Amino acid sequence: MLEELKQQVYEANMELPRRGLITYTWGNVSGIDRERGLFVIKPSGVDYDKLQPEDMVVMDLEGNKVEGKYKPSSDTPTHLELYKAFPQIGGIVHTHSPWATSWAQACRSIPCYGTTHADYFYGDIPCARNLTEEEISEAYEKNTGLVIIETFKEKNPVFVPGVLCANHGPFTWGKDAAEAVHNAVVLEEVAKMAARTERLRADVPPAPQVIQDKHFMRKHGPNAYYGQ
Amino acid sequence: MLEELKQQVYEANMELPRRGLITYTWGNVSGIDRERGLFVIKPSGVDYDKLQPEDMVVMDLEGNKVEGKYKPSSDTPTHLELYKAFPQIGGIVHTHSPWATSWAQACRSIPCYGTTHADYFYGDIPCARNLTEEEISEAYEKNTGLVIIETFKEKNPVFVPGVLCANHGPFTWGKDAAEAVHNAVVLEEVAKMAARTERLRADVPPAPQVIQDKHFMRKHGPNAYYGQ
Amino acid sequence: MLEELKQQVYEANMELPRRGLITYTWGNVSGIDRERGLFVIKPSGVDYDKLQPEDMVVMDLEGNKVEGKYKPSSDTPTHLELYKAFPQIGGIVHTHSPWATSWAQACRSIPCYGTTHADYFYGDIPCARNLTEEEISEAYEKNTGLVIIETFKEKNPVFVPGVLCANHGPFTWGKDAAEAVHNAVVLEEVAKMAARTERLRADVPPAPQVIQDKHFMRKHGPNAYYGQ
Amino acid sequence: MLEELKQQVYEANMELPRRGLITYTWGNVSGIDRERGLFVIKPSGVDYDKLQPEDMVVMDLEGNKVEGKYKPSSDTPTHLELYKAFPQIGGIVHTHSPWATSWAQACRSIPCYGTTHADYFYGDIPCARNLTEEEISEAYEKNTGLVIIETFKEKNPVFVPGVLCANHGPFTWGKDAAEAVHNAVVLEEVAKMAARTERLRADVPPAPQVIQDKHFMRKHGPNAYYGQ
Repeated sequence: MLEELKQQVYEANMELPRRGLITYTWGNVSGIDRERGLFVIKPSGVDYDKLQPEDMVVMDLEGNKVEGKYKPSSDTPTHLELYKAFPQIGGIVHTHSPWATSWAQACRSIPCYGTTHADYFYGDIPCARNLTEEEISEAYEKNTGLVIIETFKEKNPVFVPGVLCANHGPFTWGKDAAEAVHNAVVLEEVAKMAARTERLRADVPPAPQVIQDKHFMRKHGPNAYYGQ
Repeated sequence: MLEELKQQVYEANMELPRRGLITYTWGNVSGIDRERGLFVIKPSGVDYDKLQPEDMVVMDLEGNKVEGKYKPSSDTPTHLELYKAFPQIGGIVHTHSPWATSWAQACRSIPCYGTTHADYFYGDIPCARNLTEEEISEAYEKNTGLVIIETFKEKNPVFVPGVLCANHGPFTWGKDAAEAVHNAVVLEEVAKMAARTERLRADVPPAPQVIQDKHFMRKHGPNAYYGQ
Repeated sequence: MLEELKQQVYEANMELPRRGLITYTWGNVSGIDRERGLFVIKPSGVDYDKLQPEDMVVMDLEGNKVEGKYKPSSDTPTHLELYKAFPQIGGIVHTHSPWATSWAQACRSIPCYGTTHADYFYGDIPCARNLTEEEISEAYEKNTGLVIIETFKEKNPVFVPGVLCANHGPFTWGKDAAEAVHNAVVLEEVAKMAARTERLRADVPPAPQVIQDKHFMRKHGPNAYYGQ
Repeated sequence: MLEELKQQVYEANMELPRRGLITYTWGNVSGIDRERGLFVIKPSGVDYDKLQPEDMVVMDLEGNKVEGKYKPSSDTPTHLELYKAFPQIGGIVHTHSPWATSWAQACRSIPCYGTTHADYFYGDIPCARNLTEEEISEAYEKNTGLVIIETFKEKNPVFVPGVLCANHGPFTWGKDAAEAVHNAVVLEEVAKMAARTERLRADVPPAPQVIQDKHFMRKHGPNAYYGQ
């Protein structure tokens, strides 16, 4: 079932090592079929060079495994909460990509220092708060999702397609699995350049708001004119 | 038309990912035929691995598309202004290469700390001022070109074949598209080493002027003696 | 003799250059057969591209060469002491991997700043003390091992599968040679991210203890639920 | 003539881009035949991917070209002075490798922070002083050599097989061209780790002298016991 979606999610997963976003099995990508209410996700801890499209696991939105010989990624409950709360998104990625993870470990949101950031993320890329001891012991991965959702209470996840989880690493999303991976690549590049920008100038302010508006709107929104 | 120039511009564009200067479609190269008053530029937002020489777009110096099935790069009006203002140049490159972009995001010119820089750029690689709100809303890409030209009011663009646009990224140029890419590679390498130099010594001064003069003149000017 | 172990140790050694952990011959991997009380280790100073499985050297736990045409790695006495003191381990790796070595050169333990670290190492990755002048002149490599063992007097080497030797570089270990290399890769990645984390926030605290506990236990211990 | 030496020098030059030490043509390697008093060096400004063994230029120790269709590297007078002053060396390399060049641009010697450095360089890797205006205008490349020699007035170039030229970049040497390149690779790695070490600990002292002695002597000198 869902062979086409499995193939897409498989290919999006395989893009992670090619793009240098992951070491070993430290990442996972999922994609959802909104009509059927099912999503497809990478199995837990399987080597990327042994992964096959048919190894992808099919889950429903109650968290039940619908198909698959493997256990799904241990982060599946996080993906599930995000799919339920953000109906606009079709794919989710989690990685430990080194620059984004370094910001997460510093518990800092990434300020928008330039147009590379503004082309994809409108404003700061937020760092979600740490989970409480209770949230961790009770249902860690599910609560990770709920804390992300809390972080986006007043943000549109389409305008800011990613988040840092404190002391952990990034999640990104998009209209499908491929776009979610694209945003994970952009986040890593933006995180790297923001870190270097701060080292070149300790008191550097964010890019002027008009530049941020211009670039985000040049690629998104009703008057976008970038691309074909 | 302009098949040879299209091929050159195509190859110069393809050199950007090979040299690690771009992620996805974040860059563009153009080249000009001064006799005909036409320039050739990469189409907007087309994947590098799908790009073909015949996809290059031909533009005239009034900004009209003369030939091409695709829309030209969204940065085309910037290239156009530079070609009009700098008659000595034959090729232009724009990238978001990470080290140069970090300097641009810090709104800092790159001081000349050594001979690698002095071999190609005479003095600072300047960071152009930010555009005003009016300049952004009115004709953003065209005004980006005009602000670069303003930055070079008292500089020779042949001696300083590149610039940083504040909160955005670098433009470089050269006698043709290939040399413009060569200068983009050099700028990225110089930007990286200058950042590291400052971290090794907080109060580091620029290289002595005599060294800067010697190295620039060793490769350029009437008594150049580098190369064959 | 020990053909299978030699093959495993050979493959683990060859993984070091593939993973970017070593330059030239700056590393060595060994693996032990506990039943026979023999371990297999890389020969000293042989180029990786000339190495063959049959070049591996077989040693006993008194430090005698049992088989092999080459001299064993000069670090063999360190491996020997670790095998004797840590009966739970089956493979050992030494490298000069650049980020871990930079921490070692700074004589600093690596604090646990996030889940990537906590997934593999429980608490700080310790930096062992420098050897005394006497320890160096007397039996340098053996005493390197004894100082590591001293560092783990109150630590379980299974929970913290690696160490930094002051002004030198890292050793890691695991249940076999392959896992020891896996932990060397993780250590390098964790060392890199910890350094960047500190630059992004000078006063950054370690990750909350509950997060460290949760992640280590998610992958290790009786209730582990990561992987298949 | 000197076909074998040309082949060695050619191969040593080709190792520079493979090891990531150079961009474009920013480097050169030479090797000397001490019996004949002739050295072989890379031609100036020729692309590495077009270089052939027969393109190497043969020079005598008075600075005359003895054979070769190309002009020799513009740095030839520097190599010449070093061969005359340091009779123990058989090969020389110059690069603009990024980490070593960053130290050179900071006009700083590289302290010995650990065993990776001590295995190859005994004590600091010195940064030579800047040339005076007169030295630059008179015979720049020759005087670069003389200033290096001045730097080694009280140092043995066999124990410290490399130097940084202020605001310029590194030179390394060895018993032949291949060893000189090996030392250039080591210098770049050591320069990188030393920079990172200082960022991890601002007041970091050099490695204890006993460690420096032990490691240098383990690989060099009459009682060396590293390797086969």
